[in-house]
Amino acid sequence: MLHFENDYNKGAHPALLEALSQTNLESLSGYGTDKYTLSAIDKIRQVSQCLHAQVTFLAGGTQTNQLVIDTLLKSYEGVLAAETGHISSHEAGAIEFSGHKVLTLPHVEGKLNPVDVQQFIEDFYADNNHEHMVFPGMVYISHPTEYGTLYTREELERLSQICHNYRIPLFLDGARLGYGLAADTDLDLPTIAELTDVFYIGGTKMGALIGEAVVFTKNNQPKHFSSIVKQHGALLAKGRLIGVQFDRLFTDNLYFDLGKHAIELAKELKAILREKNYRFYLESPTNQQFIILENSQLEILSQAGLVYSFWEKYDTNHTVIRLATSWSTSRDDLLALRDIL
Amino acid sequence: MLHFENDYNKGAHPALLEALSQTNLESLSGYGTDKYTLSAIDKIRQVSQCLHAQVTFLAGGTQTNQLVIDTLLKSYEGVLAAETGHISSHEAGAIEFSGHKVLTLPHVEGKLNPVDVQQFIEDFYADNNHEHMVFPGMVYISHPTEYGTLYTREELERLSQICHNYRIPLFLDGARLGYGLAADTDLDLPTIAELTDVFYIGGTKMGALIGEAVVFTKNNQPKHFSSIVKQHGALLAKGRLIGVQFDRLFTDNLYFDLGKHAIELAKELKAILREKNYRFYLESPTNQQFIILENSQLEILSQAGLVYSFWEKYDTNHTVIRLATSWSTSRDDLLALRDIL
Amino acid sequence: MLHFENDYNKGAHPALLEALSQTNLESLSGYGTDKYTLSAIDKIRQVSQCLHAQVTFLAGGTQTNQLVIDTLLKSYEGVLAAETGHISSHEAGAIEFSGHKVLTLPHVEGKLNPVDVQQFIEDFYADNNHEHMVFPGMVYISHPTEYGTLYTREELERLSQICHNYRIPLFLDGARLGYGLAADTDLDLPTIAELTDVFYIGGTKMGALIGEAVVFTKNNQPKHFSSIVKQHGALLAKGRLIGVQFDRLFTDNLYFDLGKHAIELAKELKAILREKNYRFYLESPTNQQFIILENSQLEILSQAGLVYSFWEKYDTNHTVIRLATSWSTSRDDLLALRDIL
Amino acid sequence: MLHFENDYNKGAHPALLEALSQTNLESLSGYGTDKYTLSAIDKIRQVSQCLHAQVTFLAGGTQTNQLVIDTLLKSYEGVLAAETGHISSHEAGAIEFSGHKVLTLPHVEGKLNPVDVQQFIEDFYADNNHEHMVFPGMVYISHPTEYGTLYTREELERLSQICHNYRIPLFLDGARLGYGLAADTDLDLPTIAELTDVFYIGGTKMGALIGEAVVFTKNNQPKHFSSIVKQHGALLAKGRLIGVQFDRLFTDNLYFDLGKHAIELAKELKAILREKNYRFYLESPTNQQFIILENSQLEILSQAGLVYSFWEKYDTNHTVIRLATSWSTSRDDLLALRDIL
Repeated sequence: MLHFENDYNKGAHPALLEALSQTNLESLSGYGTDKYTLSAIDKIRQVSQCLHAQVTFLAGGTQTNQLVIDTLLKSYEGVLAAETGHISSHEAGAIEFSGHKVLTLPHVEGKLNPVDVQQFIEDFYADNNHEHMVFPGMVYISHPTEYGTLYTREELERLSQICHNYRIPLFLDGARLGYGLAADTDLDLPTIAELTDVFYIGGTKMGALIGEAVVFTKNNQPKHFSSIVKQHGALLAKGRLIGVQFDRLFTDNLYFDLGKHAIELAKELKAILREKNYRFYLESPTNQQFIILENSQLEILSQAGLVYSFWEKYDTNHTVIRLATSWSTSRDDLLALRDIL
Repeated sequence: MLHFENDYNKGAHPALLEALSQTNLESLSGYGTDKYTLSAIDKIRQVSQCLHAQVTFLAGGTQTNQLVIDTLLKSYEGVLAAETGHISSHEAGAIEFSGHKVLTLPHVEGKLNPVDVQQFIEDFYADNNHEHMVFPGMVYISHPTEYGTLYTREELERLSQICHNYRIPLFLDGARLGYGLAADTDLDLPTIAELTDVFYIGGTKMGALIGEAVVFTKNNQPKHFSSIVKQHGALLAKGRLIGVQFDRLFTDNLYFDLGKHAIELAKELKAILREKNYRFYLESPTNQQFIILENSQLEILSQAGLVYSFWEKYDTNHTVIRLATSWSTSRDDLLALRDIL
Repeated sequence: MLHFENDYNKGAHPALLEALSQTNLESLSGYGTDKYTLSAIDKIRQVSQCLHAQVTFLAGGTQTNQLVIDTLLKSYEGVLAAETGHISSHEAGAIEFSGHKVLTLPHVEGKLNPVDVQQFIEDFYADNNHEHMVFPGMVYISHPTEYGTLYTREELERLSQICHNYRIPLFLDGARLGYGLAADTDLDLPTIAELTDVFYIGGTKMGALIGEAVVFTKNNQPKHFSSIVKQHGALLAKGRLIGVQFDRLFTDNLYFDLGKHAIELAKELKAILREKNYRFYLESPTNQQFIILENSQLEILSQAGLVYSFWEKYDTNHTVIRLATSWSTSRDDLLALRDIL
Repeated sequence: MLHFENDYNKGAHPALLEALSQTNLESLSGYGTDKYTLSAIDKIRQVSQCLHAQVTFLAGGTQTNQLVIDTLLKSYEGVLAAETGHISSHEAGAIEFSGHKVLTLPHVEGKLNPVDVQQFIEDFYADNNHEHMVFPGMVYISHPTEYGTLYTREELERLSQICHNYRIPLFLDGARLGYGLAADTDLDLPTIAELTDVFYIGGTKMGALIGEAVVFTKNNQPKHFSSIVKQHGALLAKGRLIGVQFDRLFTDNLYFDLGKHAIELAKELKAILREKNYRFYLESPTNQQFIILENSQLEILSQAGLVYSFWEKYDTNHTVIRLATSWSTSRDDLLALRDIL
């Protein structure tokens, strides 16, 4: 079986497991107050060039999105997101469960268009009845998006400016941030820290067993945030589990190297797909590639041993599938894939 | 000033005020257990030809929608509604505040198309990832809709059948039900009681000071519903305030007569508008009429003393406004309006 | 039947019904923006000697408590209250439903002891684990309490000082405030406005059909409060219903006169009870009186036509019942009661 | 430094880390559908002698309590617990945050008395106003309790019978269940599975890096539970992290052996404490021991290198501290402790 279905089907990068082993029998304080967690926070501040950043480690993406959005919004506010945003479609209603509407806008290859965001907010305040409507209280973007695409620096600047003008936070979901940073892009981590109000650095899809690092960049972490995390059932007694892994990820450039590895292999994957005349659904510069198959091919590829993700119906006869590289993909995997295709 | 902006700008129909006066000094039990409330419930059962109906009186439409939807849905379920549905757009996020997503579908002149509902549910269950998505757990319709339009009996039967097939309730928001029942329609109250699982009979827009009657038609009222109402802060100590009014509304056919009055005047209003060559936004058979004006006319009509509702922008140069008749509109009002137009 | 069971078994004071009738056919704007509501707000500011007060009218006590507490607390905070406080025991868990713990303290005849409040907060912050506990975020008192008792000016000053020191709001539930103001007391309305951060002036138990006036006294009303009220399903389309009644209540001293009337009759009631050698459960200076009966007397009094409230078991053989006077109690009622007793 | 402060200051038992390493590079399906998770479920069914049990793995205790309680209760219900129960005091209001009141009863050395539970429920239903109060909808116990004490089989049978009579579930919090099972007790795992409706088997305090196994024993797991878990932000993409650890814990009797080890050392700890004339706060048969120290001793012991948990003030001059053994405590630790004491 050849696994290209996602970027989280393996366990941890070996260096992270090793770090867990090496620190395993140390007695450490609980709930994210241990020295490895503190060290990881410090390293994230350094690489983000945001020395006053407030960093908290959480278990997963949906939990992180729910906690950030629920705590930064007022009760009468909703969050603006692309209709394809993860919070809109694939988190089982976690945002609404916490009391807030996801105000969806059309997407352009998974991205929000700053013009649409500006227009939505303008129209909202122009409406005489807006006190009976849900206030736009935050802008949520994912980077890379659910379609693997990336915002340009200029796009992020424009979104940041709009949010600044209306005094609402800009939140960047970085579940796959490492892959985004390693792609051809003019957006680096310090710029993201500067232009957003809060973002998170994904671990689960970047070689950690578990863990996402939420970074509040503008001294805007809600007061008593750890109590809020506890109240959501999201505070781990052994916070070290995530702290040790992130401490290692941000040692010796590992996080960035894992991203680069996956992006290099993604480029080779694209070359193979082009060579074999596969049709791309869109142009993705990151580790997720989307191609359009005739429905008849789906079963053939499965039987040949390829594990992919069914993404969506394209039309009656065609289907979009996802192939993803990751920190754990090898050149041998690509060669084997080439043979199958 | 000539008031056509909505159907709730006056107080109560005089007969209701009189009923409140006549019963005012009687000592009655609280929280909706008084004899007038019980009598009103009985009368609603009779006119709905649904003798086992469970009826509860609440204060307003948003409160009613929130209570019905929140209590009938499981936490992982959302409610299907037209994008123009009141719960989607003009209730300040009350449904999401109670934890549930409003799953919006396109509207056809304010109505849900049964084909779209069927397709949405089918697609949902066909999706491999649907356990990570919000389950469709209820269908919400308004009748008349926010655009004054009405479902046909056949449309309601089809929606009812779909809901039945998927074992989810069909909920009809009848904030203006009396106007809908009095229009040219093949849907009467007993049929609505038969085809829906829960609906409400609006009072506030039909001559009451306050009050909506929620009717659970299939012995499906949530257990301990009055405790739930109390917990939402929606249980009135002096439940008589609503009970007495509904008891009077359903005495001597008053509720239906008020509807007929408004619909007759709405027909005359339409005739005047046609005569004066106004352009209709859509064909509404009920008390709300929507016309398209050049923006320049808006101020002129206001200055002439007409109070209307701004509805929405039509295009850069045109605006949709609403004119509504009600139980309190008089022929003199129409004559005066004719002069202005 | 002789009704002493509570202070809300009648409809409205006739002057309020008359005001509703007189204004009934005026066309007014909705949602609490009409002129009578604005006038009522102005009058409440005047009598409270708090000209910048922010006043909102809501339907009932539980709704008011839920809205005030939920919107002023942070998610990780709870509200301190006496174990006998209405929010602790008789609101069907409305506070917890909105996400907050009621942190109960022992009561002294229905009142919180400032010493207990100070101690609780000190102990909380002294606890190393307090980040895993619910923060005390507000103090809730009722005045009169559920047992009819009143805080003294000194007690309220001490509670106010404690809240001020810890920067948490003091909230006074005035469901029966008019009765409290008319009793022998050194606390008047301006002092209450000065010493509390938010309080409400009860209407339902003071002769209104419905309605409570929430008063934020320190320019501390949550932003976009009307949207929040709407979101809770608590915004009435015909806000005039409450506005007109409060406008009348605060015209010609009516609210205060109704209180005085009930307190005078309560004194006469106490005299009768003493004369007949009934045993008081506690000394209440307001309109609610609590007496201890042998269980055998309960049925006898009921059969004689007295309607009272069962309050609580006193011991195996005795029961506490409540007798209440109100704006609607007459001297004839007292004479009839005297005959029964 | 000598660590006796709790049972979660180390990482994982080495066998669990080894299992994670061995399976690390296998490609597995996500979200708890992998083969190790399925195997762990099967093993838990076996040792519980409850072959139809529905088992779900979650990250931590507060999360588990919140999910179980919120999903099994109706909105108008609360959960009965001892005032010292973890959900009452040390979960930052997580239960109230999910909308439910914790109905507290006095504790007897951390335990609920079945007589108190029965009385509370009887009194509730005897109260005429109970529709305005929070319904008792579940009984929550911890076993071992927060004070290390254990229910007897007879006590659990009585609680189970009461719950059965009133048709409400009995929920056992087993954060330290392994230590309870290994102590002198007449309660084994199959009996617990039989007498409770849902319980959880703690991993975090029993040698896992993370993880608790929730066991619904009566085919009563809420429908679409994984969607609910997702909606709470509690579904791990790499469910294998917990599945692999529990699969190992229930292989070769490891979970039970770890419990036995800690209990043996706890007995030796008690012997040392007695030998040194320390005063016990209560008699605990499990791994947590509570002793009363003069305040002056606190600093002395800390300086000698002992890490303990401050528990609570005993009186002005004395303090209760906790010393805990665990799967990771060694005899050398005890010898060193003896020297310090």
